[in-house]
Amino acid sequence: MKRLAFDERGFTFDGKPGFLVSGEFHYFRVPEEDWARRMDLFKEAGGNALATYVPWLIHEPEEGTILFDRGEKRDLQGFLELCREKELLVLLRPGPYQYSELVNDGLPTWLIRNYPVIRATDPAGKPFRDESVSYLHPLFLEKARKYYKAFAGVVRPYMASNGGPVALLQTDNELSGIHMWFSGPDYNPETMGFGKEDGRYASFLREKYGTVKALNAAHGTAWTSFGEAKPEREDGASFFSARRRKDYYDFYFSTVAEYSALLASWMREDGLTGPICHNSANPRENPRFRETVERMGKDFLLGSDHYYNLDATWAQNSPTPQYALKILLGNEMLRAFGMPPTVLEMPGGSPSDTPPILKEDLLACYMTNLALGLKGVNYYVYTGGPNYPGTGNTADIYDYNAHIRADGSKNETYGALFAFGRFLTEHAWLARSRRAASVNIGFEWEGIRSIDCDCEKLSYGGGKAGKLLERGWLYALMCSACAPAMTLLTEELDPELPLVVPVSGALSEAAQKNILSFVEKGGKLILTPVIPDRDQEFRPADLLSPLFGGAVFKKSGKTLRALFAEGVGCVYGMNAVTEAEALPPDAEVLARDADGGAVFVFRRPFGKGQAVFFGADFMMTSFTQPVFLESLLARLGAKKTAFSENRNIFTSLLEDGEGRRMLFLMNLYSGRQRTSVRVTRGGEVLIEDIELEPMEIKAIEL
Amino acid sequence: MKRLAFDERGFTFDGKPGFLVSGEFHYFRVPEEDWARRMDLFKEAGGNALATYVPWLIHEPEEGTILFDRGEKRDLQGFLELCREKELLVLLRPGPYQYSELVNDGLPTWLIRNYPVIRATDPAGKPFRDESVSYLHPLFLEKARKYYKAFAGVVRPYMASNGGPVALLQTDNELSGIHMWFSGPDYNPETMGFGKEDGRYASFLREKYGTVKALNAAHGTAWTSFGEAKPEREDGASFFSARRRKDYYDFYFSTVAEYSALLASWMREDGLTGPICHNSANPRENPRFRETVERMGKDFLLGSDHYYNLDATWAQNSPTPQYALKILLGNEMLRAFGMPPTVLEMPGGSPSDTPPILKEDLLACYMTNLALGLKGVNYYVYTGGPNYPGTGNTADIYDYNAHIRADGSKNETYGALFAFGRFLTEHAWLARSRRAASVNIGFEWEGIRSIDCDCEKLSYGGGKAGKLLERGWLYALMCSACAPAMTLLTEELDPELPLVVPVSGALSEAAQKNILSFVEKGGKLILTPVIPDRDQEFRPADLLSPLFGGAVFKKSGKTLRALFAEGVGCVYGMNAVTEAEALPPDAEVLARDADGGAVFVFRRPFGKGQAVFFGADFMMTSFTQPVFLESLLARLGAKKTAFSENRNIFTSLLEDGEGRRMLFLMNLYSGRQRTSVRVTRGGEVLIEDIELEPMEIKAIEL
Repeated sequence: MKRLAFDERGFTFDGKPGFLVSGEFHYFRVPEEDWARRMDLFKEAGGNALATYVPWLIHEPEEGTILFDRGEKRDLQGFLELCREKELLVLLRPGPYQYSELVNDGLPTWLIRNYPVIRATDPAGKPFRDESVSYLHPLFLEKARKYYKAFAGVVRPYMASNGGPVALLQTDNELSGIHMWFSGPDYNPETMGFGKEDGRYASFLREKYGTVKALNAAHGTAWTSFGEAKPEREDGASFFSARRRKDYYDFYFSTVAEYSALLASWMREDGLTGPICHNSANPRENPRFRETVERMGKDFLLGSDHYYNLDATWAQNSPTPQYALKILLGNEMLRAFGMPPTVLEMPGGSPSDTPPILKEDLLACYMTNLALGLKGVNYYVYTGGPNYPGTGNTADIYDYNAHIRADGSKNETYGALFAFGRFLTEHAWLARSRRAASVNIGFEWEGIRSIDCDCEKLSYGGGKAGKLLERGWLYALMCSACAPAMTLLTEELDPELPLVVPVSGALSEAAQKNILSFVEKGGKLILTPVIPDRDQEFRPADLLSPLFGGAVFKKSGKTLRALFAEGVGCVYGMNAVTEAEALPPDAEVLARDADGGAVFVFRRPFGKGQAVFFGADFMMTSFTQPVFLESLLARLGAKKTAFSENRNIFTSLLEDGEGRRMLFLMNLYSGRQRTSVRVTRGGEVLIEDIELEPMEIKAIEL
Repeated sequence: MKRLAFDERGFTFDGKPGFLVSGEFHYFRVPEEDWARRMDLFKEAGGNALATYVPWLIHEPEEGTILFDRGEKRDLQGFLELCREKELLVLLRPGPYQYSELVNDGLPTWLIRNYPVIRATDPAGKPFRDESVSYLHPLFLEKARKYYKAFAGVVRPYMASNGGPVALLQTDNELSGIHMWFSGPDYNPETMGFGKEDGRYASFLREKYGTVKALNAAHGTAWTSFGEAKPEREDGASFFSARRRKDYYDFYFSTVAEYSALLASWMREDGLTGPICHNSANPRENPRFRETVERMGKDFLLGSDHYYNLDATWAQNSPTPQYALKILLGNEMLRAFGMPPTVLEMPGGSPSDTPPILKEDLLACYMTNLALGLKGVNYYVYTGGPNYPGTGNTADIYDYNAHIRADGSKNETYGALFAFGRFLTEHAWLARSRRAASVNIGFEWEGIRSIDCDCEKLSYGGGKAGKLLERGWLYALMCSACAPAMTLLTEELDPELPLVVPVSGALSEAAQKNILSFVEKGGKLILTPVIPDRDQEFRPADLLSPLFGGAVFKKSGKTLRALFAEGVGCVYGMNAVTEAEALPPDAEVLARDADGGAVFVFRRPFGKGQAVFFGADFMMTSFTQPVFLESLLARLGAKKTAFSENRNIFTSLLEDGEGRRMLFLMNLYSGRQRTSVRVTRGGEVLIEDIELEPMEIKAIEL
């Protein structure tokens, strides 16, 4: 078997770069007699790996009876042997939680029925739902440990380290989802240890604050010991409340990390070596895994799941530009974690018969992910089959409208799988490619994580900064000649790219210092739409004002009809946030209220660099917005990447750094579109009057 | 000029049936020198009318200076004269409110600035926003009256009654929107007259309750007079609170009706005769106009606005099945009002440059509306032009990406307009056609209006009944061989069609009586998912239990993996709501819990008819759902309409009652789809293996 490895740029197989192309293939569903044929079909479509859950529900039907026999629907060993024979790597996902459209989310019924004490609860002790377990509850861990041990015993001989196919192991599944989707963080008192000096919560606070006095000062509380501290649901209306909320979220995510690390340690104890992975349930949840990534250390792969529709309640039926922006955000965050952007669940179908998963949509989805940085993929599911009797919660035949149907026949969508697989094979150099960018969007984990729960007292809070980033800047830049990348504000900033920082009123001191030093050394900055005056703990911290040399700002109450920018004209769809009332003499005004003349955008030199203040926010609506951003970025020395005359066609340019370039043109709409494209980066190329079919993603090697 | 008339079946022109095909054409934007050419282009595309706002903002720039001069951008008369010459009917929309992407929503700046007292407020007296006026505020009415008089003076000679082109006048615009979108109903104390015995609110309560004692008994209050009664925001957590909330909403909508009637009376006083119309902002808001329709009486046309996307924050970028369901719901409600389904704003473009309005999507949108009952349309906007300086809030050039661009050039989407117009012309018989249906979905205005604000104490409340209707039954029936129509439960029920009644725990006594008598006389009923035990005033009222002859019901706590129905098999995606614990001897079980055996669906004879109780709810996910509904409806004698083998292709059949039939096949997805269709209604026709392009609506005359 080939040896799988990965770094921030991509995957390698025995050291040779390649895409990880995996298909979810449930040995507990797919009829055994058809395994070989379906594996061959997957390999023909360019696949090199298979993934499967290993459902506790099925392997421990009664407590204490753990069956990894060769019985029908439980023959994990047979499956792994055949994978070895077929030279397919394997990703195993033993849960404990898995969902997979199984009853009890894949947990044993005896566990759910007999041990209600293990359920996650809200602050009042009310459980969320039967299946939402409290990850670190000792009784749950005791039961799960036994299952993990049995699993390890079976799997050990098949590990890559033993010459077997198993190249990746996954801890649990879409962590935090079963809590956050149904209520919020888990407050199970036993798990969190409320009331105990050595409880998890007390320990977290002690480590963070050192003294109870410091804790009380930050939280506005009057505890006499750390053990006494008891959290409640917080509305974030005051800085105290916002700190208490943030601390609880941070604490909760640290318990998620602890849980992942514990599961990994069990694997190690039981002799399972090699890389471990986890899948964030969707791109916007990636920041929840900051503690997990830190704690899991080397050889850990965080990926995310990238569905566009699972039933008619989803916002979109097909992959749209809004979907693409979410994917871009997600992939860039994975890159910032030092991971090769990996989609651990890419739609292979849907559990719902409607909206249908159509082959054009599916191929567009895959190609969009690739254009936006994908390096590895696992299709969920590649193929299904009959559920173990009584274990399916959506149907007894788990067809999933997948590439290969439950009955073994080829779905139309197999064509999309095949076409994408062939594309990856034919352009293997893309496996180490990078996305070309003209500009960096700066963010920090804490900022982006708190998007939906920052403090309302901030000068610009309430999640607005996150929307401005995704639906404002990222969207507008994707409609411009200047492709955006994302970068962590707490790491070294690329001096070659102008840096846009959409902020709430809070930004960590480390980030503020880093930005200041970036500009000092020659960096070009756009700060928008406020000057942060608090750090991420909501303590006063205003290190960025000096960039603007004594400019006097005020919160603007204006309704802007338009901004007016010299050389551009009117810019529509901008909302006034911060006006500059007085400017230092070296400031250059870049945009004013088109009617009243108040200054909203200006720049000034600072150190060897330049700082632009941009006091407006916006959602992408009018093409005057990207035109303005292009002009602004040009003044800051940004180099264009690729420009589509029809701004509703997103572009992306992948490069290998040695002269190879692939241009992607994305028509993520249901109607035909035409455009002409000028590629600037890496040598000018003009592509004139090109037509794109509905949902067509054209890839053109230049 | 031809004389426009309408009834529930459609429009007539000098007595001859035809579609109303109007285009929004702003004389205050389109350059005068290009009016004639653009009118000709509209006529070439099948148009027979134009519509325009008459913006107060532009015609009364300073208080007291009302200008209907022949000045540039204000030449309403010139526009009307040219319409007469071109034989285009005109729909005039003088506001006062209009929006139309104008600053202040089209209200004069002096009005907004100088009279803040006219703003709508919340119960605490906080205004919603500057432009959200309180419709019946005396000061606002005083100002508006003068504008209306001036408007009438100009328009009178051009009215149809005087041989002119003006065939329709609209009162205000998207009424209730400027309140409900930003806060909720208006509580302006001056307008509503709180604290006054002869105030509007006191009068409403007096008329409804007669005595203060009765009011207090219903509201759980202790007022000593009607004048004393003061409303607050209500959460509906108790029946008292829910009644107070419902009464306030009913009262508020009655003030909306009063306002419309008042504007109409001004028109009459000033000599403007002929039909008057109003546009509900979207299909789901149609029920808000029950009081308006009643109050406006004859010669009133209620239409609704049917956008599918106005910017990237909308759920869908193109017309989808979810959009089609909303349209079906909306059109059926208009029919129930006795109106010809008229789309008073059908997208002609969008104020946002992204997502783009593409010609395929646009044609699919028009054809879908037609397939689902449309009889009249006004494109918003057919064409635009430069805004009066400083009056546009999205751009200075109001291009709107419309059929004819601001600069006069043809947009690609003109092709969609032209194709649809030609289709209507070539199939003029459709103007009096009816949509064939196999089954009726029963509703009542109060029920559907309270969908999002019924009482949580109801056995099935919290808006669930509305979702079950739209995303459950309507969706599943559109995926079945049995097309749904909708019918008011308080009017005569068609004995030929089985009647499905998705209810919350509340249903008016009148509706309950009507249903009972319908079944007694031979009707076939499906009641789901509870037996209502309250009337719409939340008073005990259980008239429907007798239908089920002593069956004992209980609220079900089950998680259903599936229902099992004889002859159908497992039905997935159903949620347990009500189980039957004991059945009368004459009951026939139709579906049980597939695992536990509890009864969820059964039928029994009652009078000359049959009653089915269906104790589960569902969102459309699995095609086993429509299969089950088909089988159930077949048992109740429903006759199939048209069946698409690919259930993701919606069908609709229009008939003229004299043998002409037009079948519509709708592919509202971005990928190609194939299907075969069997039409049963009106003579069997089989259409085999037909392919539909992305967003293609095929119309086949049979």
